[in-house]
Order: sequence, then structure tokens, then C-alpha cells
Amino acid sequence: MESLRIFAPATVANVSCGFDAMGFALDALGDELIATKNHSKNVTISKIEGAMLPFEADRNAAGVVAKHMLESQGFPFGVDFQLFKKYKPGSGLGSSAASSAGAAFAVNELLGKPFDATQLVQFAMLGEEAACGSQIADNVSAALYGGFVLIRSYHPLEVVPLPTPPELYVAILHPQIEIKTEDARNILPNDISMKHAITQWANVGGLVSGLYSEDYGLIGRSLQDVVAEPTRKLLIPHFDSVKLAALENGALGAGISGSGPSIFALCRGIIALERVVEAMKKSYSQTGIDYLVYTSPVGGKGVQIL
Amino acid sequence: MESLRIFAPATVANVSCGFDAMGFALDALGDELIATKNHSKNVTISKIEGAMLPFEADRNAAGVVAKHMLESQGFPFGVDFQLFKKYKPGSGLGSSAASSAGAAFAVNELLGKPFDATQLVQFAMLGEEAACGSQIADNVSAALYGGFVLIRSYHPLEVVPLPTPPELYVAILHPQIEIKTEDARNILPNDISMKHAITQWANVGGLVSGLYSEDYGLIGRSLQDVVAEPTRKLLIPHFDSVKLAALENGALGAGISGSGPSIFALCRGIIALERVVEAMKKSYSQTGIDYLVYTSPVGGKGVQIL
Repeated sequence: MESLRIFAPATVANVSCGFDAMGFALDALGDELIATKNHSKNVTISKIEGAMLPFEADRNAAGVVAKHMLESQGFPFGVDFQLFKKYKPGSGLGSSAASSAGAAFAVNELLGKPFDATQLVQFAMLGEEAACGSQIADNVSAALYGGFVLIRSYHPLEVVPLPTPPELYVAILHPQIEIKTEDARNILPNDISMKHAITQWANVGGLVSGLYSEDYGLIGRSLQDVVAEPTRKLLIPHFDSVKLAALENGALGAGISGSGPSIFALCRGIIALERVVEAMKKSYSQTGIDYLVYTSPVGGKGVQIL
Repeated sequence: MESLRIFAPATVANVSCGFDAMGFALDALGDELIATKNHSKNVTISKIEGAMLPFEADRNAAGVVAKHMLESQGFPFGVDFQLFKKYKPGSGLGSSAASSAGAAFAVNELLGKPFDATQLVQFAMLGEEAACGSQIADNVSAALYGGFVLIRSYHPLEVVPLPTPPELYVAILHPQIEIKTEDARNILPNDISMKHAITQWANVGGLVSGLYSEDYGLIGRSLQDVVAEPTRKLLIPHFDSVKLAALENGALGAGISGSGPSIFALCRGIIALERVVEAMKKSYSQTGIDYLVYTSPVGGKGVQIL
């Protein structure tokens, strides 16, 4: 294989109760990326559409991932990337993770698939580090595996793919404001009460159970975050109003996507999805803040060749 | 129905990562209880074998549960209990929960089953309060539902029954020392670090996933408690040694049963179980502290009529 074009999905990390441990991929929103072999020993980025990102491979998430992968194999060839960013970086929808996971998947294909899924996540995490400053696995795992994932452990890395009930859809409202990941991290408390912690892990257990048993009600009741959302929502204007609008119009649950500012709402079925989207839009239209809206099945596909 | 004899299983609460949120029932260890209708408006306890417990209904877990249930129905008849305690109170194996859950189940039968499973748990929690000072649901839920359970929420109460993989067995070593539930509570920190909390809920997610997918390795890797065990184990002499002996001899995982002092080890299959039991016994025999050992399938039965 000399060249391939791939789809790398947008992802929602944390998923309310699953702070820093869960994520899921979207089927209908994601970046595209063309990776092409060449006879150099370099990684280059010849095209970036849709976002202002560095062209230098050492500063670009896709470039960093590719260099590490090729180096580990003795740099048998070079790779050029063309990146087609379909949604904005800084949205809280795993933009750098899409580049990182997409690059990891593509380079693995070009190399003849020497790496397993866990190794691909580990390489993709190096792209996350380059883009965001830390080796976070939730977005890249969800992008690579598709559907819902759980990061059970970082040392050693263990990603647990979870089942995705077939009628699960997500509505996302992306307020056009910027939240720095650093600010979203710094606003979090270092310690939490045992009581809140127990509430959180009981809900993680409920969410995982609901995904396996396709119990949409249980999924919804479990989508509560008493740990990060209470402080992080302060960075997202009118978060409570749009969440309430989603819940009052039939969303199973709603919360902050990643570190925000995007707000996600999970829905059962496409009719509920449409009602929820309208309610979220109506709610946010009153704020005077620009926003974008995305909808998608919660997907099982993950990164794939187009 | 005028009289019935029931089995009420011993239970392991917390289950390492699932502190205050998970529990499971044993098939091969539990109390028996005979409940007999009479024409009074009283709850009496005419016999208690195997433990020193109060005969006054208002101070006995079974009596308290029965009085609340009968009162809620206008006290249509009285009930007498005979309690056959088959393992020691204060073991960390849900002795009061067995009485409470057994009484709730039995009285519901005598009344013609007016109450659903959640209501039975709520009545049984009143027995737990009488015996232990707080309305804890994990042991009584496991006893009533059988198998593994998750307490997703207390307000409102929601018990999520989880599947139990068929080859799951438990070995329990009960050191003959006393730990007061109050001491086991007081030794816990009020706050925990966000980092530890995330580790804990990632493991809860892993454990629930492992139970559904019958992934015994994942169950074992998820049986980690970074929150309660590090302090509570200080109350259990030689805990680390016996846990290590279990793990080195093939246990999937091991931890403190409830608030202790019993130590449980989950095993896959009966051959592993036997090896683990021998290792735990050998380890504890060197301590000079008396102990009892129990083994059982992790059971799906729960409270039942004999």
C-alpha cells in the first residue's frame, strides 16, 4: 500500500461519570487524512485544510506519531500527510486525537500492520502529548476502537472496548468560545470527598452495565458527574440552561464533552435526537454566543480506510 | 402460607474497587431462618442458634425488618422467627444482612408478596441500621438478589443486578479477631485524591465489564482498591501476607470482605479455588491467630425458600 485516505472520528471523552476513564466515538463527524509513502526518511505535512495547525512534523500531532512509529521500525520509508480537519480544534471533541489516532492507524497500514491496538493507542498518545501536553488515552482510544471505551489502567495501558447500544445518538452543541485545556485542568480540585467519589464510581458501574444490557434508562441515570462538571461548567457560559433544555426534551443525559466547551447529550433514537437538538439550539440562541451543532450515531466504526 | 424456612446467604460487600457500591452473594454459606405466622400483632424471636443476638424484636435485625413490614400493612398477623446463624456476626460477611434480607423475604412471602425487590431492600436496610447504625444496602441487596449487585444510587435507591460468570468461586479466610464497624469507618479518609478516585472508578468499570463479558482476567485486574484497603488493612493482622499468598497461587484478586476482618479471594474454577485456600491457610497458620475458612461458588441464588 502506497497511499490511503482514512476517516478519524471525533470523540467525546469523560462522558460525565467516566471522568478521565471513558470515551466514545462519533460515526458522522471526524477528520480525513491522506497518508502517502515516499522514499525519504522524513515525515512531512503538505496540506492542512480546515484549521490553523503547525506544518512542522515535530509540532504536529500526526507528524509526531508517524515519526515515532517509523523510527521504531528503522524508518523504512517516509510519509507525507494531508490533513482535512472537519471540525475545529479546541472544541472538546478530540481534534488532536483524531489526527493522532488517524496517523497511527494510517502508518500502521503502510508498515504492514506490525502494531496491535494497544500499541497504536500508545503511539497516538504521543501525539496527544505534543498537542495538549499530556499523554491522555481516552480520546485516541475511542477514535481507534470506535464506540465506547474504558481506560481501565494507564500503567500498564489497558483499554477495554465496551458495547454500544444500537439506538444511541449524540447531539453536540459547540459554543464558539475557547477553553484552554490547562485552565480546565487547573480548575479541578486535587482532592474530592469520599462521598462524591463513591457516587461517581457507582455511576460508572451503572453506565457500563447499561451499555452491556442496552438499558437506555440506566445509561441516562448514570450520566452524572459530581466531580468535574460542577467546577468545569463555570467555564462554559449557560451550560446549565442548555443541559436542562436537553434533559427536559428527552435526552438520556448530558454533560461536558472532554474539557469543553462542547456540550453533549445522549439520546435514544433519531426522533428524540432531533427534538433535543432543537431544544439545545433554542436555548443557546438566546445567549448571543455563536455556536455549532453536530449530531451523530454513537458509532462502532472508529478510524477506518475510506 | 403459614410458615417457611429460608436460606439467606452470606455476602461480600465492597469487592475491592466497588467500595460502598458493590457486593456479591455466596451460594454455599448462609443463615437459615424459620418464619411462622400467628394471630397476635407481635413479632417475636423464639430461638437463636449459633450467635449471641438480642431476642427483643426491636433490637434484632430480623425483628425490626418484620415489624416495619407488618406495620406498613396494618399488622394483619404476627410473626415468630427462629434464627439459625451459620457463621459468626462481626465476620465482614454480612451476618446482620442475612438476618435482615431473610426476614424481608420471608415476611413478604407470608404477606402474599405485596413488595417488589427494591422495597425489600429498603426494609432490609432498616435491619442493617438497627444492627450496624447505618442504612447500608450492599450486603442486603446482594443477599436478596443473589450474585453480583451494584448500588448505583441511594436517593432514590437503585440496585443493578449484574451477571455472575459461571466459573467464579470465592475463598474466604476469617481471622478470629473483632473489628468494630465504627472503627473501620473512622479509619477511612474523608477526602481522597482525584488520581486515586479515577483509578478506583476505572477499575469499577473494568469489573462490571468483566462480569458481563466473562473475562476472568479483566475481573482480576480490576480487583484493586486504592481507597479503603490501604488504611483498613491496618486493622487486619497479616492481611498483606495472606493476600499475596492468594495472588501467588492463582487467585484472580483478593481484598477485604466488607469492613473486615474476613479476607476474600476470587478464583476461576474449583481447582484454583482449592490451591488458593491451601495457600491462604498455610499463610495464616504461621501467625498464631485462629481463623476459619469458607469456600463457595459466587452464586446467583440469593435468599430462597428451603
